[in-house]
This record gives sequence, C-alpha cells and structure tokens, in this order.
Amino acid sequence: MPLTIGKSRIEALSDGVFAIAMTLLVLKLEVPEVMHHSSNQAMLQELLAMAPVFITYAVTFLIAGGFWFLHQLTFHFIRQVDSILVWVNLFFLVLVALLPFSSGLMSHLLVHPVSQLFYYGNQLAIAALLNVHWHYAKRKSLIHNCEPSDMFLLTFRTAQTAAIFAACLLAAVIIPAYSWVPIPVVFLGGLIIEWSRSHT
Amino acid sequence: MPLTIGKSRIEALSDGVFAIAMTLLVLKLEVPEVMHHSSNQAMLQELLAMAPVFITYAVTFLIAGGFWFLHQLTFHFIRQVDSILVWVNLFFLVLVALLPFSSGLMSHLLVHPVSQLFYYGNQLAIAALLNVHWHYAKRKSLIHNCEPSDMFLLTFRTAQTAAIFAACLLAAVIIPAYSWVPIPVVFLGGLIIEWSRSHT
Amino acid sequence: MPLTIGKSRIEALSDGVFAIAMTLLVLKLEVPEVMHHSSNQAMLQELLAMAPVFITYAVTFLIAGGFWFLHQLTFHFIRQVDSILVWVNLFFLVLVALLPFSSGLMSHLLVHPVSQLFYYGNQLAIAALLNVHWHYAKRKSLIHNCEPSDMFLLTFRTAQTAAIFAACLLAAVIIPAYSWVPIPVVFLGGLIIEWSRSHT
Amino acid sequence: MPLTIGKSRIEALSDGVFAIAMTLLVLKLEVPEVMHHSSNQAMLQELLAMAPVFITYAVTFLIAGGFWFLHQLTFHFIRQVDSILVWVNLFFLVLVALLPFSSGLMSHLLVHPVSQLFYYGNQLAIAALLNVHWHYAKRKSLIHNCEPSDMFLLTFRTAQTAAIFAACLLAAVIIPAYSWVPIPVVFLGGLIIEWSRSHT
Repeated sequence: MPLTIGKSRIEALSDGVFAIAMTLLVLKLEVPEVMHHSSNQAMLQELLAMAPVFITYAVTFLIAGGFWFLHQLTFHFIRQVDSILVWVNLFFLVLVALLPFSSGLMSHLLVHPVSQLFYYGNQLAIAALLNVHWHYAKRKSLIHNCEPSDMFLLTFRTAQTAAIFAACLLAAVIIPAYSWVPIPVVFLGGLIIEWSRSHT
Repeated sequence: MPLTIGKSRIEALSDGVFAIAMTLLVLKLEVPEVMHHSSNQAMLQELLAMAPVFITYAVTFLIAGGFWFLHQLTFHFIRQVDSILVWVNLFFLVLVALLPFSSGLMSHLLVHPVSQLFYYGNQLAIAALLNVHWHYAKRKSLIHNCEPSDMFLLTFRTAQTAAIFAACLLAAVIIPAYSWVPIPVVFLGGLIIEWSRSHT
Repeated sequence: MPLTIGKSRIEALSDGVFAIAMTLLVLKLEVPEVMHHSSNQAMLQELLAMAPVFITYAVTFLIAGGFWFLHQLTFHFIRQVDSILVWVNLFFLVLVALLPFSSGLMSHLLVHPVSQLFYYGNQLAIAALLNVHWHYAKRKSLIHNCEPSDMFLLTFRTAQTAAIFAACLLAAVIIPAYSWVPIPVVFLGGLIIEWSRSHT
Repeated sequence: MPLTIGKSRIEALSDGVFAIAMTLLVLKLEVPEVMHHSSNQAMLQELLAMAPVFITYAVTFLIAGGFWFLHQLTFHFIRQVDSILVWVNLFFLVLVALLPFSSGLMSHLLVHPVSQLFYYGNQLAIAALLNVHWHYAKRKSLIHNCEPSDMFLLTFRTAQTAAIFAACLLAAVIIPAYSWVPIPVVFLGGLIIEWSRSHT
C-alpha cells in the first residue's frame, strides 16, 4: 500500500511491547524456597545469592528504557509512517520482546562467554534496527520540525548505542568479567552530560 | 444499543492484546539448564538445539505483526463502530490471544501433522474473522475517506491472508515438512511489492 | 483532593488490565506433553481432553470482553472522574485481574461446586462493582450528553449482568452441571437483540 | 538533549508497566492441587489456606493503584518532560515492576522479618522516587495550571506515602505481626477524608 498512515498505533504497540517485555523481566526473579522458621541470616543469604539476578533485572530494564527513550525521540520527529517503516519496527519489536530470554540466560550464567555473546548480541541487534529505522525515516523524508542540531544529536546517539554494545560484545570475547563496563560508563556519562547541558 | 461509538477504546484493547500475545511468545523460550562451567561448545549446542523454538517465536511474532498491521489499516478507514463490530473484534482477539498456545504446540512438535493443523487453523481463523470484520464494516457503511483503490487493495489483502493459511493447512496434510513455504514466500513477496511500489 | 480530573488515564489503565487479564488466560492452556512420534490419534485425544480448558478460556475471555464493553460504554458518557470513582475502578480492576485465577480453578474442576461458586462469585463481584461505578457516576452528575433512553438501557444492562451471575451462582448450588446455562442464553440473546435493533 | 518533549508517551509506558505489574500479581495465586472428587470441605480448606496470598494480592494491587493515582495526579499538572525526568520515571518503573517479586516473597512468608523489610523497602523506594519526581518537576518549572492549594496537597500526599512505608518498615523491626497496620489505617482514612471533602 503506497499509503502513509498515522504513527499513533505503531507507537501504542511499541509502548505495549516495551512495557510488557520490561515487566516480564521480573518473572526471572524466583521467590527463594525458604521456610517460615528460617533464620533471618539464612534468608538474607538467599536474597544476597540472588544479587546477579537483581542486577541483571535492573540493568536490562534500564537499557530497555534507554532504547524506548531513543525510539520515542525518533517518533517525536517522525510525521508519518509507511509500510516499510512498520515492518522495520516489527522486526525491532521481535528483538525487544526477546530481552526476557536474553536476560534470563545472562542472570543464570553471568560470566559465561556464550551467554554474554547472546545478551550483547541481542542488544546490538536492537540498536542496529533502531539505526535502520532512523536512517530510513530520514532518507524517505518522513520527518518534520527537526532542527539540524537535534537531527545530528539523535543520529549520533543511535550510532553511539550500537557502538556501546559492539564494545561489550568485543569485551565479552577478550575480558568477559569486565564486559559490562561500557554500559554504566556511558549510562552515567549520558546522565552527567544531560545534567550539565540543562544547566547551561 | 443502536449507538455507534468511537473506535479509540477498541483500538487500545486490540493494541494491548496484540502486544501482550506477541510478547508472551517469549515465555515459551526456556533458558537451557546448563552449568557455569559448561564448555562453550556444550552451551552453543544447547542454543542451537533451540533453533525450532527461536524460528517459531520470530515467525509467529511477525505473522501476528502482519495481522496487527492489516487490522490497523482497516481501522484507519473505519469511522465508528457498532455493537456487532465490537463483538466480532472480541472473537478476533480470543484467537489472537491463543497464539502463545498454538506457537508452543508448534515449536515443540514442529513437523507433527496435528500441531501443524492446530497452528495453521488458528491463523486461518484469525484471518477469517479479519475478513468478517472488514466486510461487515463495508456493508454497514462504517467506513469513510477510503478511495476505491485502497478499499480494493485492503479487501484483496485480507482475502489473500486467509488464502495463505488455507494453503498451509492443505500443505500440512500433504507435505507437512514444507507446509510453512507459503508464509515466507508471501511475506517476502509482499515486502518486495511494497518496496517497488513506493519507488514508482 | 476535591479535584475532578480527566478520564483518559483511568481508561488507559483499565484497557491495560483488561487486555492483560484476558491474554494471561492463555497461560492456563498447557502444551500437552506428547512426543514427536506420537500418533495423530494420540495427539488428537490429548487436545480433545483439553476441551474444558479451551471452553473456559474462550468463555471467560468473552465474558471479560463483555464487561470491558459495558465499562467502555459507561465511560463514553462519563465526562470526568473524582477520587472516589478512581478507587471504585481500582477495586473493580482487582477483581478483573483475578479472572486468570478463577478461570484456572474452573477449568481444572469444571463441575466442582466450590470452584463454580468461586468463579461465578468473581464475576458477580465484578458486575456488582460495575453497578456501583455507574450509579455513583449518575448520582454525582459526572455524566454528560447521555439521553434518557441510553441512560436507562445502560442501567438495565449493568443490572442484568449482575442478575445473570447471581442466577449462575444459584444454579451452581442446585444444578451444578447446568450452572453455565444462563451465560450463553443471555450472550446469544443479547447479540440477537442488537442485530434486530440495528435492522429496524 | 536539552529538548523538553511531550508527556503522552511516558504516561503510556507508565500505564502499561503499572497495568502489567498489577495484573502479574495474580500469577502468584496458584490453583490448588485438588481432585474432582475432593469434598467441598477439603476444597474450601485449600482456598482458606490461601488467605494470606489473596490478601497480599489485593493489598499490593491497591497500593500499586494508589501509587498510580498519585503518579497520574502529578502528570495532570506536569506540562512537559525533560531527559532527567524521563530517567527518574524509568528508575521509578524498575521498582514498580519489582512488585510481583516483593509480593510473592511477602505472601509466602507473611510474618518473616526479612520478607517484610524487603516488601516495605520496595514500597518505600517507590514512594521516595515519586517524591524525587514531583520535586524535580516543581524545581524545573515543568508544571502548569496548578493552584498553590493543589500543589501543597500533592506535595503533602507524596510525602505522606513515604512516611507510611517508613512507619511499616520500622514496625516490621519492632512488632512484625502488626507491621501492616499503617496501610489500612491511612487507606481508609484517605477514603473518608475524600468522601467528607466531596460533601462539603
């Protein structure tokens, strides 16, 4: 269909898939099998043993939130969508909805090379499709009211996201125990930059 | 109630059911029970053994995405809804929400004739109700601003979707190992047609 | 807060809870544990043995869809909401979200008196809160543009829904094997009335 | 991005996460393993034994509903959002989506000190981030059309919510069996105040 249609429904489906994928992450947190008469000590130990699962939960939720934020920013400037863009978004959502699986694999096998490759590979694929989505929208002039500086910044950010997970993927091969380092560094870096920018 | 009402709430419920049914598909992907000290070789083998599950996941997600897209296009032209159309949509959503079950059946028993009949039967029933939905809306003049060429194209597409899954169903009886062939052929065919159309 | 606020967010939360509760019903459908080499006969038998689960799934989905439809119709006429109405709706949603549990209980123990009482009790409680919701909105003049005939019809319908499930509850005590009879009778009756009305 | 953007997408994501987290609570209610031929007596006993799980379900749903209501009220007055506010909201949603886990822990181990600390700690953290969210929005002048009396009331309420769960947390250490008392007291108190206010 040569038709270009409104963007509100694809936004609604995307918000739905993101909200569900992010909330389903919690199902990987299994309530520990302790007894009513377990000592506080024993129970705290059970919960502390779940630390990798909690961390993977929170980190994956926030990474997904970051992708959602970038996706939302692109749609802030996208005026309308065509069939190709809808299909790019559906492939994008297939990968977003896969996150509870990748996250489950990662939280059980935090330092296993293969689970790290799968996890970062999932994130990199999401980032790659976000880049395809944005560049397609730019090339087909589906964008409006986007000043060159905003357009540049958004192009930079989507590329940067792909770079982070490519770095993680590479690190997982070389130094698996520290493969996660690029994520908090850039997360916090991004927050600091936002903060300083909004104060100047 | 003889009343015709707005379409935004039935769109919201549909987007919700689609987003959830599509994202719940991932729950059929179980994290393999491997150990921290499993070799990379062993773990890759576990993941490769899951190939039918991954493929069923991605294919079912994209088929559901295709149904969502067609459903959205029909609502793009539907001006308002009456009670019958709401009920047709609720029956449609019963079948959409059944997809995680059909998909689970299919991914465990990829070439079993009965699971194939169930899976394609589910898809065919969804397609059939989409046709009922569209023809009812046309007959009751609930549509507006739809040019004859768009109306024809949409009628053709909804019918075509039913034809695909009827073909799969027939193939499942005769040549179960290749019953899936009509889906990617038409999927890719559709993408190519969109692409060429948007370039002429 | 004496404030009366917009209705769009409570509509969005309700659509979300309904969509999720309805779609979660499918998680009660467990893929049967059959083998790749099981005969078609054996597998069909497994699926046929699941008939009560399928029926409970579809019926509960459609009942929930009916409640959603009535809920939507009331909000079609509600102009704004106050705090009490928000809390009535939250209690309403607690009971809607309980449906996957009631449905699971029912599908496993279709003719057990206690599971029937629980299931119909859940539905009756939903219907009761829908009546509270509608009568509160009427009494506090939160409604607009509702002609007396529509107002009467909607009041009649919400009361009728409560009556159906009270009848089912009573039937469950006396003739448990036929306790479900009031539901399809009124469902189909309602559809026929709609149909005939929209043709006169 | 120095950009301030619309609030509708973050509202949609929040409504989605709340609706899903609230509805997922029901998955902690497991259908009891009773037989078709179990006596009514035996089955009632099974259901009554689930009382702590039902209560935790309903209470957690309504607490989450209360947080959703406060969150919605703040967004009623927030005109637009900036990047920091989006991130504060994403951290807020991480904690909201954790509720099914906290609730599962609580319902299995109702009077265990550690599970109580975890549960109330989760609620307190949600309340704390809601305060951060509201104060940040106030300080950055992202709010509009909010009369001083409404602004004060909303500030009071968000602070009050944090105080309730701090009180529960403290009570869990000293008198674990009655740690829940602050919740219904303030819940009902709030409802009574609303009611009396809307009648004067």
